Amino acid sequence: RCFHMCKLPGRVMGIRLLRFTSVVIIVLLLVAGALTALLPTIKDDKLPNSRREPKTQSQSALDSFTLIMQTYNRTDLLLKLLNHYQAIPHLHKVIVVWNNIGEKTPEEMWNSLGPHPVPVVFKVQTVNRMRNRLQNFPDLETKAVLMMDDDTLVSAHDLAFAFSVWQQFPEHIVGFVPRKHISTPSGVYSYGSFELQNPGFGNGDQYSMVLIGAAFFHRGYLEDFQQQPEAVYALIDETQNCDDIAMNFLVAKHTGKPSGVFVKPVDIRNLEKDTNSGYSGMWHRAEHLLQRSYCVNKLVNIYDRMPLKYSNIMISQFGFPNYANHKNKM
Amino acid sequence: RCFHMCKLPGRVMGIRLLRFTSVVIIVLLLVAGALTALLPTIKDDKLPNSRREPKTQSQSALDSFTLIMQTYNRTDLLLKLLNHYQAIPHLHKVIVVWNNIGEKTPEEMWNSLGPHPVPVVFKVQTVNRMRNRLQNFPDLETKAVLMMDDDTLVSAHDLAFAFSVWQQFPEHIVGFVPRKHISTPSGVYSYGSFELQNPGFGNGDQYSMVLIGAAFFHRGYLEDFQQQPEAVYALIDETQNCDDIAMNFLVAKHTGKPSGVFVKPVDIRNLEKDTNSGYSGMWHRAEHLLQRSYCVNKLVNIYDRMPLKYSNIMISQFGFPNYANHKNKM
Repeated sequence: RCFHMCKLPGRVMGIRLLRFTSVVIIVLLLVAGALTALLPTIKDDKLPNSRREPKTQSQSALDSFTLIMQTYNRTDLLLKLLNHYQAIPHLHKVIVVWNNIGEKTPEEMWNSLGPHPVPVVFKVQTVNRMRNRLQNFPDLETKAVLMMDDDTLVSAHDLAFAFSVWQQFPEHIVGFVPRKHISTPSGVYSYGSFELQNPGFGNGDQYSMVLIGAAFFHRGYLEDFQQQPEAVYALIDETQNCDDIAMNFLVAKHTGKPSGVFVKPVDIRNLEKDTNSGYSGMWHRAEHLLQRSYCVNKLVNIYDRMPLKYSNIMISQFGFPNYANHKNKM
Repeated sequence: RCFHMCKLPGRVMGIRLLRFTSVVIIVLLLVAGALTALLPTIKDDKLPNSRREPKTQSQSALDSFTLIMQTYNRTDLLLKLLNHYQAIPHLHKVIVVWNNIGEKTPEEMWNSLGPHPVPVVFKVQTVNRMRNRLQNFPDLETKAVLMMDDDTLVSAHDLAFAFSVWQQFPEHIVGFVPRKHISTPSGVYSYGSFELQNPGFGNGDQYSMVLIGAAFFHRGYLEDFQQQPEAVYALIDETQNCDDIAMNFLVAKHTGKPSGVFVKPVDIRNLEKDTNSGYSGMWHRAEHLLQRSYCVNKLVNIYDRMPLKYSNIMISQFGFPNYANHKNKM
């Protein structure tokens, strides 16, 4: 190569060569610079999901979740909670299921008090149904759904941690409120919490459901819910209750495992008493718990099996809030 | 059909018919009875693994575990612990790794004090090495190994629960003692527990190792351990330390996930002070922790990467020991 070039008159060749090699060197430096910038930093030991990222619309479908909150007759609580939840890390969007039939949503007021960290969509309903929140909303862009009752406040720390747990157990309902069913010798099931006898496996208690009023689950289960027997919808509509029990049946059937993973909340609050509406939740109705036992048995009839399975796994956050919360006298 | 039969003389035909139909009916009843007996009882809601079963040699390889306990110069503690551990539910066999070179094992005395719930095998070693306990013992018949230090007492309740957790996370080291490494700006790693700064992911602490001196893990990892670079064995032999750190590197490399799952123990005790031998554990040596930081960095060199990953999942048993241990002010 130099051969050919070397034939050119000495000085001209020299300048041309100089120019040529300079360009080559500059190009090589640029390429090297680009490659260096693209080199992955050694991050093997960092847990990618826990890093705090600025909230943007481009948060991937896997790294963020959609809050679905159904509301009836407690708009003051709704707005208080929206102010809290709109700023939760990894939140992508809020869907408010508006069960106040015929009443205007607070959308105008919401917009006038913008900007807001995330979009909030008000889905106006035509009938006040408990199962309205279980529609397969086209507004959903994330894999994960966070479903919250409109009177429940869970701290950002709890939600951030529970979301990271859901990411490790995406086929489960990962949430803060565990419940169980028990069998009785008659074959009739009963529904309850820890006050109910344990299912008899030795030590401690077991849970077989995690309530969806404070939990993360995969949006695929909303799709699945649309494919259930009519009798399930009729049951939920008849009782205005039990949509969460039905969801646990659905998930347990799908996975063949316990439907839920219980994350022990550090700071969860019921704001019912704070409402000015005078309306207190459905669970205050006298027949509420009896209805839920009724629902368990009806669902076993409808599905012709008891798919719920027990778990005794309780998950907490290592070193939080007390950095030595795992210590023992050794 | 009756046509043909009806042709026979009335009385004879009648008796034959009677006999025939009786036989048919009896056969049908027997078949129905057999079918009823074979019908599965509705057991969908029972968790098979938690049921207390009588200990027999025929406990399947999946439903039981082998305890491997290495011992040096603390035979009094060993025997105290053997009396405790021999009666743990789901225990299949005990392997005692006898590091008291040249000294007779207590096998004779053990046998004279039989019968025992499970077989105990004493593996006499020729050299007192920390990594003796990580051999791929042919005596192992179960998938799960429980490895315990010879000065650590963990309650049966804790072990039964942790074993059930291991069965749900069989590729992890499921145990009671979490530790972590941290990066420093110099690129040099340090080893420690919660007193060390957290790795900086926001709230709380993280762990990246679960020590094998009180943990369940899959026997496959003992096989894997035999395939490691010579430098790893040299490191462990040089320090008489760090075999557990090496195992965590191995597991993390294998899974690409955090190596361990931490189960918070309710009742774990260090019996060191109870020994008459005057011998206290290796971790009392002045250089112990510095050695372990040294090991982390050496292993990163040997493997040319840092495979350890962080987790902040802490698992406890729902409703045990306090049946309301999951309750919150709501």
